[in-house]
Parts: sequence; C-alpha cells; structure tokens
Amino acid sequence: MLRKLGLAVLGIALAVAGPAAAYDGIVEKKTFSMPSYTTRGGKTIKDVKVGWESYGKLNDARDNVILVTHFFSGNSHAAGKYAAGDAAPGYWDAIIGAGKPIDTDRFFVISSDTLVNLSPRHPQTVTTGPATIDPDTGKPYGMRFPVVTIRDFVEVQKALLESLGIRKLHAVVGASMGALQAFEWAAAHPAMVERIVPVIGGAEADAFLIGWLDVWASPIRLDPNWKGGDYYGGPEPVDGLAHALKIVTLHARAAGWADRAFGRKWADPARDPAAAMENRFAIEDTLDKAALARAKTSDANHFLYLVKANQLFSAGHAASLAEGLKAVKAKTLLIPAASDLLLPPRMSAAAGAILKANGTPVETVTITGEGGHLDGVLAIAQAGPAIRAFLAR
Amino acid sequence: MLRKLGLAVLGIALAVAGPAAAYDGIVEKKTFSMPSYTTRGGKTIKDVKVGWESYGKLNDARDNVILVTHFFSGNSHAAGKYAAGDAAPGYWDAIIGAGKPIDTDRFFVISSDTLVNLSPRHPQTVTTGPATIDPDTGKPYGMRFPVVTIRDFVEVQKALLESLGIRKLHAVVGASMGALQAFEWAAAHPAMVERIVPVIGGAEADAFLIGWLDVWASPIRLDPNWKGGDYYGGPEPVDGLAHALKIVTLHARAAGWADRAFGRKWADPARDPAAAMENRFAIEDTLDKAALARAKTSDANHFLYLVKANQLFSAGHAASLAEGLKAVKAKTLLIPAASDLLLPPRMSAAAGAILKANGTPVETVTITGEGGHLDGVLAIAQAGPAIRAFLAR
Repeated sequence: MLRKLGLAVLGIALAVAGPAAAYDGIVEKKTFSMPSYTTRGGKTIKDVKVGWESYGKLNDARDNVILVTHFFSGNSHAAGKYAAGDAAPGYWDAIIGAGKPIDTDRFFVISSDTLVNLSPRHPQTVTTGPATIDPDTGKPYGMRFPVVTIRDFVEVQKALLESLGIRKLHAVVGASMGALQAFEWAAAHPAMVERIVPVIGGAEADAFLIGWLDVWASPIRLDPNWKGGDYYGGPEPVDGLAHALKIVTLHARAAGWADRAFGRKWADPARDPAAAMENRFAIEDTLDKAALARAKTSDANHFLYLVKANQLFSAGHAASLAEGLKAVKAKTLLIPAASDLLLPPRMSAAAGAILKANGTPVETVTITGEGGHLDGVLAIAQAGPAIRAFLAR
Repeated sequence: MLRKLGLAVLGIALAVAGPAAAYDGIVEKKTFSMPSYTTRGGKTIKDVKVGWESYGKLNDARDNVILVTHFFSGNSHAAGKYAAGDAAPGYWDAIIGAGKPIDTDRFFVISSDTLVNLSPRHPQTVTTGPATIDPDTGKPYGMRFPVVTIRDFVEVQKALLESLGIRKLHAVVGASMGALQAFEWAAAHPAMVERIVPVIGGAEADAFLIGWLDVWASPIRLDPNWKGGDYYGGPEPVDGLAHALKIVTLHARAAGWADRAFGRKWADPARDPAAAMENRFAIEDTLDKAALARAKTSDANHFLYLVKANQLFSAGHAASLAEGLKAVKAKTLLIPAASDLLLPPRMSAAAGAILKANGTPVETVTITGEGGHLDGVLAIAQAGPAIRAFLAR
C-alpha cells in the first residue's frame, strides 16, 4: 500500500515536471556492444554485450552521472518499472527517483548488467559469459570462457559510459558485489570518480569469504548434470544450482529474520518433522522452493564465474589492499548493515581505515535491523537521508 | 613440548596416587549394549550399542560422576590416550585429568558415543544408526532407521549410567551438540542433574540454525551415490559427504582464524587463481582435502540423522522452550565463544535468561578469540578456572 502510494506520488511529481526524456518510472533496457574486449588477464572476448538502463536525464555538461553497480544475483534494474503493470520496481526504487535521495530530477542514473551475470536467460538481462555462443566455435563457451574480475566489470562499464560521452562520475553507488565495483572504480580510475557509496561491501575478499564462496559453488560441481560446464543443450545442473542459491539466500540473511519469518514452524502442519526424515521445517521447504524457482532463470557456469570474480577481488588488484587503495580520491560513504553475516561491518571498517589513513574523507552510516546482508537492499531507505546529503557535498 | 610435559607430570602424579583403576592417561573404549531401546517417538531399535570411556574412579557412594557429552563430529574420546604413542589425546584433555579443572583425582568422568554417531567405521567409535545391520533384515537400516532426537541420546546415556549403578550426576558438561545434551539432561531428569556446563551451545535450534543444518545436509542428497541412503556395499556418497563436512568446518570457524591460517595465499604458488578457473586459494584446497579425508571415516546417512536430531532440538521438547526448561534445577555455567558464528553467544544468553527467570543460578564465562565455534573445544583451557570453581560449589 505504502509502496503503491509512493509510486503514485512519484507519477504526479513527474507529470508536473514534464519533459518526455526525464525519468517517468518507465524504464527501457538497452544493450551496449563492444566488438571485442580484452580482459585484464589478457584474454580477448569477441562481441561483448551488456544490458543497461538509466533514470533521469544526462545534462549538457555530462557531469551529473551516478553509476549504480549491481549485486551478485541482481541485474541493472535498480529502479522504476518496464511497464506500469510490473509486479515490483527495480531493487533500489526506494532511493532512486524524482525527489528521492538519488534524485533523478538532478542526476542521470545509469546501471549496467555485469559480465557473467547470474541470469543470462532472464528476459531483461543482457550479459556475456560462459552461456554465450563463442563466435569462433558456434557453441557456448562453457568453462572455456576466460576468468573475469571485478576490474573487468568496471572496464566494460567504462566503455559504456565513454560511448555516451561520459568522462566523470558524480558517484558510484552499489550494494554487495556492487560495492566491490564501487571500490574498484575509485581505485582504477581515481580521476573519474568523485564519490563512492559502497553499501554492505568490502574492499577485498578475505580468506573466510573466499572459503564461503567456494562453499556456495560446491553443489554445482557435485551435480552430475554439470559435466565440467558442458551442459548446454542437455539437462542442466538445476539441483546443484538451486542448492548453491539456497546457501546464498541463507547467508544473506540473519537469525532475527528467520525467527520472524519462520520460527520452528513446520512446512506442512500435518507432517511433524520429528515423525519422519522427509518431513521438514518451513524454513527448509521455503528456501528450497525459492531456490529451485530462481535456478531456472540462472546459469550454473555463470554462478561459478561470479564466485571466482568475487574471490579474486582486492580493490586495485595490487600486492596489498593498502597499495591497491592508495590512488583513491573519491569521497566515501560506507553503508554496512549491522546484522550482515556475509560482508559484515568489519569489512567496510577495514576499507574505511585504509582510506582515512590516506587522507580520503570517509563517512559511515550503519543500517540497523535483523535482516542480515539483504538489509542493504531491502532497508536501504534508512540510509536515504545520509546518501542525499553525501551526494550534495 | 608443553603438552608432552603436562602428560609426563600427569603420569608421575598418578604413579604416586597408586590404584590401577584410577585414570592414568591410558583410556579403554568399552561398549554398552541394550537388547532394545524405544525412542521417544515410539520406535523400537533392537540390539543398541554405544561406546564409552571413563577417566578417574567411581567412588563408593557413586556420587562423583561427571558426564561429558560430545559434539556433532566427535565421539566419547574426551581425554587421555588409548596408547602412549597416540598422536593426540582426547579433545578436552586440556581440562580433564588429574589436577585439571575436571579433576580425575576427584571425579569419575564418563563419556559415551551418541546414537547415529558421525563415524560408525572409526575404530574407536561404537554407535547404532543407519549404517548398522538391522537384525530383522540382515541389511543396514539406511533411511529406515527411526528418527532419533537429542532426548534419545540422553536416554541411552542414562541407561548406561544406570548399568553402572549411577543415580546422580555432579555435572553434565558438553560442547556444541554436547551442550544441547547437557540442557536436555537437565530438562528431562532434573532430580538427577546437579550442574550443567553447556559450552558453545543453545537450548533450542532456532529457524536460522534449522536452515543452516539443512544447508549442511544438502550436498549428501545431491550426490548420485547417495541413492536414497541405500549405498552400503556399493560406492558411497563420499563427495557429497565431503562437501557437507567442508561446510561444517568453515561454519565452525571465523574470519580471524581464516586470515591467520590462510590469508589470500594460493594453494599452489605456481598457479595463480586468477589465471584459470581450476586454480585455487589455499583455504579452498586445504578445506577440501581435510573434508575428503574425514569423509572416508564418516557415514553420510549418520550425518543426515545428526542434522535431524539437532534441528528437532528444543530442550525439554515441550510446546515452548520456556516450558521445556521449567523443570531444570541444575546450577548452570554457560560458556559461549565470542567469535562463534554457529551457536553464537546470543543462543547461550537466551537459554540463560529463561533459566534465571525460573530462579536457576546461572553464570556465564565467555571464551575470547578469533577461532569461532571451535574455540569451545580448542581454547577451552581459558574457561578452566571457571569450570573448576563451578564444580566445587
């Protein structure tokens, strides 16, 4: 109800504002193409395509740009709707729009799908990865696709921005893997990035995160349908991918959320989990069903490549994180979530300490709640005033 | 060196003390048998056997007994060695022995293998579970073994104690799943239990833990060799079980430990993880190898039954935890570990709050460190003085 009301108010505001090119809540997915892209690891990928969308209007000076970078299981749909009848708007609609903290009356907000996006078959996602047809063989790359890193995500975004004549970013704002991209942007292209807002993020994958990412990926390799990644055209490793997605979902949450949503409720009130091995608790059943549904629009190899990109991440890709962050000039607003178990506040804090030591202005606003990592997406409105003020400075 | 020295000193002390029956650091695994046991769920299991061992001497009044209950992946080998040349003593040797906080000069310390113990093939573990031959069919039970609960573990232990003429427990002390058993002992047999020391435990599996336990179990069911549990005599689901054990291992640790032990070190200094999808970080490789080795002495179905027992746990198995804990009379010493992510301090605290509200004396000592859940096993010496003082009151 409140969300509907919010959108109605937004619609009115925009009808008054007028210009057809301005963000009016109806979003169009576009495709950016590169004849070839050479990864930082030195491998060339032909015919790279990524999807992108934007909200608001690019000004004549082309200096009102905010780049929004997406999370592991997300895509570039950060705000608005593709059609009035869409069930839900983009994931950060609470903070992106006319008059909102990331104000589309003022800013040109742009977001792109990453390379190896999790959902290459999703109708509104455009990506290039192992599920893509290799033009040299006419068959999907599979595990022959080159390793890509967060830096490669950034370089493709940079090419997209340059194709639009954009040379300066007012800010890069992203949650989770999007925060990793924000740090990487600031480290790789310091002269171009004025501000970063890493939400529920960190500047480096530490050993514990590397280990957990491996745990996420393991079920895929265990699925006999995975076949070393050459499953295209045959039965796909849906069960392994669903297990992987289930782990991600739980890892992105917290105990308070689970208690409120499920408690010790049974999946079926007639089937006591104590009565038979196959009788289950509600949380198990719900997570499995959600993961299986999600697995059907996702790709197992893309999942593995995303895991690799995240494991490899160390902002600036230097010998040490301190060295990798040395070039950063961007004013920084860190937004961790208090109950985050995946990229907990200590990871933001570690990055912040290095940046501060370098003389970079760093502010921190912590999202409170019991929702875990996902509070950085679902409870982002809490940080709205801080984001608005930060972008105005 | 210090450990060796400790054992040497212990040996001397006992040589002076004299009696052959006293704990002299050489432990014997014994077997307790029941012609049949009927679970709390009403299913009868014939010819139940569990292993047990003891340290110290039962006094004539049979009132100097401390029961030690073991954790998920453990067995009854809590202290001492089976032979002088053993690589390591039992897991809590730091606190159990002559002159130690759980002083075998004073107490008769007894520990038993649980039902459905993880490692039925381990040469020093005796258990009854799905890998056991069903006397009615001459074949392993597989998933036809009845569901068992923490309460069933307790009832079998009680039968063992009664077979030794023991009617009173000075204390029940256990880590992790052992803490669950300690709470259950106090709730189920309040007149028999004078003290409990739940270490890194909780009195109930909450929704988040239920979900995580399901995540642990998932890889087993995904392994094509699992075959609904009927794998005995054929290839076993070793890969699925190894994945499951890898998750447990990581979940029982914490970021500080991972940083110190591995950092971003590569598994092979010649194989940069960024250079190929199959090149890995040290933490991934080490966890995989350890889990695979462990999987070979463990049983996949037993893992699933342990997961079920832990998911079903709510001390006292009543309509609510508050009701389940109402009967408890045991003085309680809670020992959470600060960096525990599996059964974090809030779970101890929740149990403690209910017990206190009932008028039960509750003390808490927190183990500090960065080792995660496992600090409750590996850093238990920290809590030694508190345990010693508690047992003397």
